[in-house]
Amino acid sequence: MINGERTIQRPLRWGMVGGGRTGQVGYKHRTGALRDGTYQLVAGAFDLKAGRGRDFGTSLGVAGDRCYATYQELIAGEAAREDGVDVVSVATPNFTHYEITKALLEAGIHVICEKPLFFTVKECEEIAALAEEKGLIVGVTYGFTGHPMVHQMAAMVAKGMLGEIRIVDMQYTHGFNAGDDEGAGEAVKWRTNPETAGPTFVLGDIGTHLYYLSEVVLPELKIEKLLCDRKAFIPTRAPLEDHATVLMHYNNGARGRLWVSSVNAGNMGSQRYRFVGAKASVEWSDSRPDQLIYEVQGEPGQVLHHGMPYLEGESLAADRMGALHTEGLGDSWSNIYLWIAQAIDARMHGNAAFLKTHHYPGIKAGTEGVRWLENCVRSADAGAAWVEFE
Amino acid sequence: MINGERTIQRPLRWGMVGGGRTGQVGYKHRTGALRDGTYQLVAGAFDLKAGRGRDFGTSLGVAGDRCYATYQELIAGEAAREDGVDVVSVATPNFTHYEITKALLEAGIHVICEKPLFFTVKECEEIAALAEEKGLIVGVTYGFTGHPMVHQMAAMVAKGMLGEIRIVDMQYTHGFNAGDDEGAGEAVKWRTNPETAGPTFVLGDIGTHLYYLSEVVLPELKIEKLLCDRKAFIPTRAPLEDHATVLMHYNNGARGRLWVSSVNAGNMGSQRYRFVGAKASVEWSDSRPDQLIYEVQGEPGQVLHHGMPYLEGESLAADRMGALHTEGLGDSWSNIYLWIAQAIDARMHGNAAFLKTHHYPGIKAGTEGVRWLENCVRSADAGAAWVEFE
Amino acid sequence: MINGERTIQRPLRWGMVGGGRTGQVGYKHRTGALRDGTYQLVAGAFDLKAGRGRDFGTSLGVAGDRCYATYQELIAGEAAREDGVDVVSVATPNFTHYEITKALLEAGIHVICEKPLFFTVKECEEIAALAEEKGLIVGVTYGFTGHPMVHQMAAMVAKGMLGEIRIVDMQYTHGFNAGDDEGAGEAVKWRTNPETAGPTFVLGDIGTHLYYLSEVVLPELKIEKLLCDRKAFIPTRAPLEDHATVLMHYNNGARGRLWVSSVNAGNMGSQRYRFVGAKASVEWSDSRPDQLIYEVQGEPGQVLHHGMPYLEGESLAADRMGALHTEGLGDSWSNIYLWIAQAIDARMHGNAAFLKTHHYPGIKAGTEGVRWLENCVRSADAGAAWVEFE
Amino acid sequence: MINGERTIQRPLRWGMVGGGRTGQVGYKHRTGALRDGTYQLVAGAFDLKAGRGRDFGTSLGVAGDRCYATYQELIAGEAAREDGVDVVSVATPNFTHYEITKALLEAGIHVICEKPLFFTVKECEEIAALAEEKGLIVGVTYGFTGHPMVHQMAAMVAKGMLGEIRIVDMQYTHGFNAGDDEGAGEAVKWRTNPETAGPTFVLGDIGTHLYYLSEVVLPELKIEKLLCDRKAFIPTRAPLEDHATVLMHYNNGARGRLWVSSVNAGNMGSQRYRFVGAKASVEWSDSRPDQLIYEVQGEPGQVLHHGMPYLEGESLAADRMGALHTEGLGDSWSNIYLWIAQAIDARMHGNAAFLKTHHYPGIKAGTEGVRWLENCVRSADAGAAWVEFE
Repeated sequence: MINGERTIQRPLRWGMVGGGRTGQVGYKHRTGALRDGTYQLVAGAFDLKAGRGRDFGTSLGVAGDRCYATYQELIAGEAAREDGVDVVSVATPNFTHYEITKALLEAGIHVICEKPLFFTVKECEEIAALAEEKGLIVGVTYGFTGHPMVHQMAAMVAKGMLGEIRIVDMQYTHGFNAGDDEGAGEAVKWRTNPETAGPTFVLGDIGTHLYYLSEVVLPELKIEKLLCDRKAFIPTRAPLEDHATVLMHYNNGARGRLWVSSVNAGNMGSQRYRFVGAKASVEWSDSRPDQLIYEVQGEPGQVLHHGMPYLEGESLAADRMGALHTEGLGDSWSNIYLWIAQAIDARMHGNAAFLKTHHYPGIKAGTEGVRWLENCVRSADAGAAWVEFE
Repeated sequence: MINGERTIQRPLRWGMVGGGRTGQVGYKHRTGALRDGTYQLVAGAFDLKAGRGRDFGTSLGVAGDRCYATYQELIAGEAAREDGVDVVSVATPNFTHYEITKALLEAGIHVICEKPLFFTVKECEEIAALAEEKGLIVGVTYGFTGHPMVHQMAAMVAKGMLGEIRIVDMQYTHGFNAGDDEGAGEAVKWRTNPETAGPTFVLGDIGTHLYYLSEVVLPELKIEKLLCDRKAFIPTRAPLEDHATVLMHYNNGARGRLWVSSVNAGNMGSQRYRFVGAKASVEWSDSRPDQLIYEVQGEPGQVLHHGMPYLEGESLAADRMGALHTEGLGDSWSNIYLWIAQAIDARMHGNAAFLKTHHYPGIKAGTEGVRWLENCVRSADAGAAWVEFE
Repeated sequence: MINGERTIQRPLRWGMVGGGRTGQVGYKHRTGALRDGTYQLVAGAFDLKAGRGRDFGTSLGVAGDRCYATYQELIAGEAAREDGVDVVSVATPNFTHYEITKALLEAGIHVICEKPLFFTVKECEEIAALAEEKGLIVGVTYGFTGHPMVHQMAAMVAKGMLGEIRIVDMQYTHGFNAGDDEGAGEAVKWRTNPETAGPTFVLGDIGTHLYYLSEVVLPELKIEKLLCDRKAFIPTRAPLEDHATVLMHYNNGARGRLWVSSVNAGNMGSQRYRFVGAKASVEWSDSRPDQLIYEVQGEPGQVLHHGMPYLEGESLAADRMGALHTEGLGDSWSNIYLWIAQAIDARMHGNAAFLKTHHYPGIKAGTEGVRWLENCVRSADAGAAWVEFE
Repeated sequence: MINGERTIQRPLRWGMVGGGRTGQVGYKHRTGALRDGTYQLVAGAFDLKAGRGRDFGTSLGVAGDRCYATYQELIAGEAAREDGVDVVSVATPNFTHYEITKALLEAGIHVICEKPLFFTVKECEEIAALAEEKGLIVGVTYGFTGHPMVHQMAAMVAKGMLGEIRIVDMQYTHGFNAGDDEGAGEAVKWRTNPETAGPTFVLGDIGTHLYYLSEVVLPELKIEKLLCDRKAFIPTRAPLEDHATVLMHYNNGARGRLWVSSVNAGNMGSQRYRFVGAKASVEWSDSRPDQLIYEVQGEPGQVLHHGMPYLEGESLAADRMGALHTEGLGDSWSNIYLWIAQAIDARMHGNAAFLKTHHYPGIKAGTEGVRWLENCVRSADAGAAWVEFE
């Protein structure tokens, strides 16, 4: 049970690049970071328009002289201060992640970056090496995996409560791009342009969430081959996709299906996961994240509720509101931010033992997401052909 | 609204082959056929064990001398009577469907047959020609498509309420075969043996229901190519499958996914259909067949209830219980049986005009199901490769 | 598992009074009675308009000369035949139940009557004595209590799986009379007129279903006092009610609440029952009758599905479709009709032992429903005051 | 849409009395207050045990010398500082609310107090006068009414989308006290003792939430008379109740029912509200707070989702996460805390015009809750008799 007590040695001095007033993503970072006294927002380059960014930053309580016009200025300005930022979150369009992250790390600043992390695995590996060299953390905001019931699923799988895993069925399918993009806002424009989004639209934007969550729950399963069938129902989005199905064969013989779409008209209950084992299945949806369906073949179905004493310790440790009260995505993000802060804190104080077992979405998780995307694109470009997972 | 009034000229004299005491399927036929005074059960070869079959038949109210040991005896015995059967239902293992249907038709008896109809398209076409020549009906018991809300979906698609169809997502996935087959009953044994089941297990056993329902709702969509990835998680079932995913590309550019499984441990809400158009989606499940989810992008989701005046005429015409009261699979079967009876009645009385527009699952529907299976198997056997739909 | 085999010595010759073409209730009787070969519909006085009734009856397969103009003619006509009816169902407005039932019993015919049975307990007791004297059965169509999961609840309570019962919470609340009655059909007109409906509208029309079901599940609980607060939101319905809340104190200290309404605008999931014990609760709704929620305090909630081997024998014995397939209200009615037929069969053949333990809604159940209504009205008329249950 | 931007002139210096490490309530206050930079936690008397309270407070980031042993010390200590607290939250057992609130107000400090506010209406009125005299705000943490969909319901009612309100049906019923209190923790002990809890247990503890939410949604409805039937199923809790039903007659003729219980074994979906009008109904549950069911009689049911453009402005203004992402109770609390902060800010700066229309749960809301409790107790003590609402 998390109750707001500080679990790190001092609050982290935190800055943001991006996440300004005109977008929705910034608030997820802030509401995730700020509720526990773990982070203090002290600097930012919030907006491409410097004046608007400063206005916004001061409205968030950041001192005017620490509201910078660019990330370069932020790095320079903070480097000049004794109390410069410890960590910066990158909430900008995909194509800028790599250069901003690199610059921050080179300046000795920890990074928390949006997904998909970068465009290529090569970039990921280069950044991983740089972070290692600098002794810095790179966290990735796979924001849904902070939900306590995700970790309940992982613990149940680990204990063998499902038996050998046979089937993985996942979807993240909304309909907000069912219409064409005439008059669409900035957030849609950059996401559907390969130069700014990278090699994928929905696969990277939302599919990586599915993939990472499956890694958390099923750490033993490795993809051996996959097939990705993608399509742009709105032709202007091609070569990027607004809909894709990925079939996966895992090393233990399991079969996976992942469906990702932004043209699933009208769908509001968008993420759904079902993990089927030889004995039992679990099913979870982010639209009702407080409960988990656990179905043992031949027995009554079970509905597990967050915060209840019968849950595994990993789940209860991540609980904030207690059993009777619903948690939302903000609570999940706050866990992710907390876990990353604990990693940073451990790095800062040389606590290698802690880092060895501490779970948080870091550079490895970000890299694996990009690797999966590369395999998906390779398959799709080969005509939705089966490809060995590399 | 169906209220039990007779819609055909006289009740049909009806017999059954199979459907005896030890199985579950026979009662679905009987409860479907007998509630409206449309059929009268007068003869049967209910069981491979003649004595048990006679005992069972008389317990159903069939005269002892019309409880036959074999279907051949049934044909001979009924041919000898003035009041011999008009129509016989075939509720036997798959491998017998062809020979029994053929013999019945040759004897001038209409047939209602379980799915999957036969093993090959060739057999289907031969039987179709024979039925045509004899002026007889072959109905196929795709039992779920009698639900009023299925026809509501079809009417909504036809009226353009979804816009151009983009995505078809279907599943029929239960877990009753999650364990191995040691000690399994007859019904499992013959279904997992290619000699008695034909070229598929779950694809034919339950996947054909999904496919036919999609044909009813989306008559304009034709598959151009498909990919079938199938697997036997219980190895003794190979080469047949207990799990399969089929991807489909349709002629209008739509994408389909069909998931069929009998190892989806614990799943009790087994059928689910979602049809996504450019404007809106519909979703239906046989576990709550009285309601239909209709979601227009950007508007509140809608929940349509069976029997309500706002529904399309096709749906209301198929309603039996009225809006406040739930309908079940038996009601759906009773509609299928009624529609087949109306076709038989029209055939008997030369009402070709009626038959031209009358909707029921007939030999064409059965054939298309087998064609789809053949394409699935061809793809699966080629290593889950894309194949042109033939 | 019910599979259509005959469980009585011969099919009952069955007639109907009422239930004609213009109403919805008749088909529920017919679909309940006719699917198992237990009843044969051979006579009827279906309609106040004799011609329309004859036309309708013959369309149901009844011989023209057994389609009578009135129930009196039916009694006379059938008495004159060797193969006259064994049993007649009464599906007419409430105010006629008593006189028709009495006449049928006096003619030696078993009766199946709609609820609420009669206007007064006195009438019920008189009829009970007459039936006893004549050796005849009076069944009452509490149609929802045939659902297998109702009997699962009863068995679980009996086994102590809930602990001592503390709270009973029940509702049957639809919105079909939310508007006023201008232009309303016959079914609404007679139900809202005390001369034809008796002393209540929704309490009798739908509340008696709730009350009887609670008696089935909780046979040990007896009401000690109750309070009924009723109201006609559409003033023309006064003194009858379109909405009522009844509070009940039971002999074991339990507390009950029953809510009944026909002005609950838009509500389609109308019946809901929750029975709370010291250890656990069960919850059931007729809109999803195949499942039962069982919640033990401190444990994961359980969802029980009909037809599964883990259920109690009483539930499985009442199952028709098997676990994977949904049952509807028609299946429930067919069980009620079957159980009444078994009672009639036992009476016919002097099987008193069978009747001692055989469960079906009979004259006692009908009487208790009327008694409960009388207490409700007495409380309501005293200004929604507490009254001792008499 | 709330995005974390400051809407008040400066962050409020905030303290807490109670809410220490051993209870669950404190974190709800902190997670509600701290995410937007609106409050800064600078002082506290967190615990009856001074050392534990100091340890806890410093762990929350409060300076050691502002972690006080008692609320009296807090008041004295903060009064001595230039930067003393602006506002203090009272998260202590009920019996201390009055004296702590009074002392804080007399020291010129705004107050945010847990519900039920005080023991008597007289106390409420006295405190209201004191707050008025001092120019201070008293907020009450009716934490559920911050959910955007609550305000959607209110806006829909105000626009007449339901028609004249007829029926109010509310419940907050969990099962966490289904067992007896042997070995129960402090939180249960003080809640079941009249000296510390006041005249009610569940009515005050959770029933006041229901009542206040109904006031928010239905501001025009006034209770004319009510009846409260309460009971302690665990006898040691008497004279307080662990279960109660309250019937209400409103000034417009509407009928209400409120059910509150902590012995509803196994129930996890605990709050449910249904407001029925002449034309339509709305239904909302805190277990799925992001959606609202809107049912117009005779039309398909509608499911409204939070954050969607079709919602009313009042609802969208309270949204934090956007349509695709779930909100939880923490988000609701953060709205309540924000709205109270805005009220305090307006008071501080003499913005009377703002306060005239600004909506937040203040002293009046707290008083009405206590008034309702007094009426409930009066009825219950008279034998669950109807009483005029005073």
